[in-house]
Amino acid sequence: MRVPAAALALALLLAPARTTAAEAPPADADRYRDPAARLLGRALVDQGAWSRLEHLTTRIGHRLSGSPTLQQAIAWAREGMENDGLEEVRLQPVKVPRWVRGREWARVVAPVERELPILGLGMSVGTPPGGISAPVVVVRSFEELQALGRAKVEGKIVAFAPEWEGYGRTVRYRFQGASAAAKLGAVAALVRSATGRSIASPHTGMLGYEAGVPQVPAASITVEDAEWLKRMAAAGEAVTVSLSMEAHLEGEVDSANVLAEVRGSERPQEVVVMGGHLDSWDVGQGAHDDGCSCMAAWEALRIVHELGLRPRRTLRVALWVSEENSGNGGKAYRASLGDDVASHVAAIEMDGGCERPTGFGLTTRAAKADDPLARAALGRLRDIASLFAAIDASQVQWGGGGSDIGPLTRDGVPSLSLDTVGEHYFDWHHTHADTLDKVDPDDLRRAVGMLAVTGYVLADRPGRIDDPPETPR
Amino acid sequence: MRVPAAALALALLLAPARTTAAEAPPADADRYRDPAARLLGRALVDQGAWSRLEHLTTRIGHRLSGSPTLQQAIAWAREGMENDGLEEVRLQPVKVPRWVRGREWARVVAPVERELPILGLGMSVGTPPGGISAPVVVVRSFEELQALGRAKVEGKIVAFAPEWEGYGRTVRYRFQGASAAAKLGAVAALVRSATGRSIASPHTGMLGYEAGVPQVPAASITVEDAEWLKRMAAAGEAVTVSLSMEAHLEGEVDSANVLAEVRGSERPQEVVVMGGHLDSWDVGQGAHDDGCSCMAAWEALRIVHELGLRPRRTLRVALWVSEENSGNGGKAYRASLGDDVASHVAAIEMDGGCERPTGFGLTTRAAKADDPLARAALGRLRDIASLFAAIDASQVQWGGGGSDIGPLTRDGVPSLSLDTVGEHYFDWHHTHADTLDKVDPDDLRRAVGMLAVTGYVLADRPGRIDDPPETPR
Repeated sequence: MRVPAAALALALLLAPARTTAAEAPPADADRYRDPAARLLGRALVDQGAWSRLEHLTTRIGHRLSGSPTLQQAIAWAREGMENDGLEEVRLQPVKVPRWVRGREWARVVAPVERELPILGLGMSVGTPPGGISAPVVVVRSFEELQALGRAKVEGKIVAFAPEWEGYGRTVRYRFQGASAAAKLGAVAALVRSATGRSIASPHTGMLGYEAGVPQVPAASITVEDAEWLKRMAAAGEAVTVSLSMEAHLEGEVDSANVLAEVRGSERPQEVVVMGGHLDSWDVGQGAHDDGCSCMAAWEALRIVHELGLRPRRTLRVALWVSEENSGNGGKAYRASLGDDVASHVAAIEMDGGCERPTGFGLTTRAAKADDPLARAALGRLRDIASLFAAIDASQVQWGGGGSDIGPLTRDGVPSLSLDTVGEHYFDWHHTHADTLDKVDPDDLRRAVGMLAVTGYVLADRPGRIDDPPETPR
Repeated sequence: MRVPAAALALALLLAPARTTAAEAPPADADRYRDPAARLLGRALVDQGAWSRLEHLTTRIGHRLSGSPTLQQAIAWAREGMENDGLEEVRLQPVKVPRWVRGREWARVVAPVERELPILGLGMSVGTPPGGISAPVVVVRSFEELQALGRAKVEGKIVAFAPEWEGYGRTVRYRFQGASAAAKLGAVAALVRSATGRSIASPHTGMLGYEAGVPQVPAASITVEDAEWLKRMAAAGEAVTVSLSMEAHLEGEVDSANVLAEVRGSERPQEVVVMGGHLDSWDVGQGAHDDGCSCMAAWEALRIVHELGLRPRRTLRVALWVSEENSGNGGKAYRASLGDDVASHVAAIEMDGGCERPTGFGLTTRAAKADDPLARAALGRLRDIASLFAAIDASQVQWGGGGSDIGPLTRDGVPSLSLDTVGEHYFDWHHTHADTLDKVDPDDLRRAVGMLAVTGYVLADRPGRIDDPPETPR
């Protein structure tokens, strides 16, 4: 087995513990060097994914669950997949919420008067028709909110202005803020956008109302205004805001996941599924979140098909719907499998944008990274990913998956995420700025190549990636 | 003379030609090491500039010419300077335009319907009350516009979507676009925001209407939408936009430059003036453009005063007004001098934001950088700037000045600009995002120190910085 020295050094560096003889890397990289060369070579000069992403973002635009543009994207993808000659192209019915933003605005009305840019949070209720005007109470944390108590919060608009501690930690204010504020009698919530960098850009995203708590309207504000509100509060200045939102939910409507395959030659009932979510928020173009991933997975399958590479198992692409505001696409996909979920040998989701890829994350049934089962699976994935050393994308880490394949992960399907440098993703995430101009066509090509090779190898290799270490090859 | 090796190496590297004996560096750095130590030390732990910038940006906010907030800032600055015990604190009357943005919006109405974020350009006329709806013609350059000709432009909205070639080159589309389009019969102009990085942020700024050409409304659009319009045009899709702007000019109103001094001990009629502009656009907080500079210059003078350092000549701070949309503050300042402009021995403007300072630019009567007069002046400034080597701010380059001191520069006053790394300035420039949270308090401290030392040395040193090389010291 020939592995570039740098990749080997990196693999050793990342390995949680010394590799034992029983976990000696299998020979996938060598065995699949030829198809990998064909797939990767084709992907790296590919024009198809970009061309489709351009159509999806420029001509169709954003694609909120239940919107006409999402339905348009679904029909367009199905037709394109059929024209590509992919197999088993079909729409899988999914009920999705139809949440409608309507018109919305906010203004600071005292002690100064000015516009306050907002984006209502996804699934928020609206205000009463005349809007809400109330003094703002600024808190940096849930603890500060609790410490204020009902006396200081009742009848107010609570502005959450936490420090940025990364998306994973800071997003809880967006998700839980409205109910936390409402429990103390607040009439609305404003939440600092979940980003580390801002050019006066509000970021939307899903909120969750707690059962039994009054539902109050909630909107994101910019980092700039969150900082301003903190300074005004520190200066003892009482700020009053008027908020008007028409947001409302119009129940559930019919939508669909888009599926297509290259059927397996030996065990077609066994499946590797890969994809992203076709829906987006109702701002920007859903380019990085998650249009690029859908186009990458589709193009990866198309290239496998074009090259006549039929793996032993079925390789399937899924463009899930309603990831952003219900997860219903991923749930419907899982539900459709029933007990056959055990025949899903791997799932790959790409939902972190299309910046420069670095490799893959992996989650299996194994409890933690230094579990022998995890080490065996990671070793196999490192071996495959070594094929991406020349595009600087051979890093493998424990912890993969994605929202849409979460139901599969929970039922034991080995789950991969395609990882990227993640440098600017959250600058654009859920804003008007998630547009095609932020996507580098070569980053997209690299992702296509990684999905094509990894999907093909996982679908063709004799064993599963999560087989025990001692499994004969 | 003791000059740190790194600064000396840098100075030699930057020198346009070998230093001759006649241009041997004078000894300012040595002569002023003691006052420089006191000024720089005080500035680098200063709290005053930040505290005032916080008030200006947070409590007063943006400060458009002719607005109540600009007048509030002027009164506040005057009072503060008087409380500081500065000398000759006064308001210098300036007539400034009162341009009012009013409400404004744009929408794409075909082939899709969506909001089109805009910022009307400064000094633009409005649309008729019902707004304008017209097909959009997209051009990348004035040449493309000319090539289209009247037949394809008349009755249309021209969208300028040039490549970003840096502010200096790309800003011409903002300034000249409206008239260029109107000459061919266009009814309005949309202009790509003058920035290299965007998070869906439109940037305003001044336009100039050509005499004798119909005045049509003009607004900036985001980089994202400029790119989208280009792609739609390339796809052959005709885009129609509705534009509504209430923008209008309400004539001229009274305003004022704010001036304060430390009077010279020997030749008080000779002056070094330093400052920035107190006005801003009517979005954001005018933090980097140019509030921070005003606060830095004011605090620099306050520290000179506090330390009892009275230079031979007068050191003056000027907070000019209406830099953004008329230049009237700088013109009024120049006009007030009459023939005494010859007694202005130097002018320093800071109007490139408060990112990390790197040094100074310099312009004198000399025609070019390798003119012996220019080399002599640059050598003297490098010597002074060597005092800033330990804060990495000793770079000196040919080409300085600023809009407000332009009338002085044109009449031969040696003109300096404080230069910075300029990494993100144009990301925030003229947007809602030009806010205090973008300013690093330590960058502000460094600027205060550089202005205090350089202003003091230029006001105290025996000769002028632009004296001929052979001038006896």
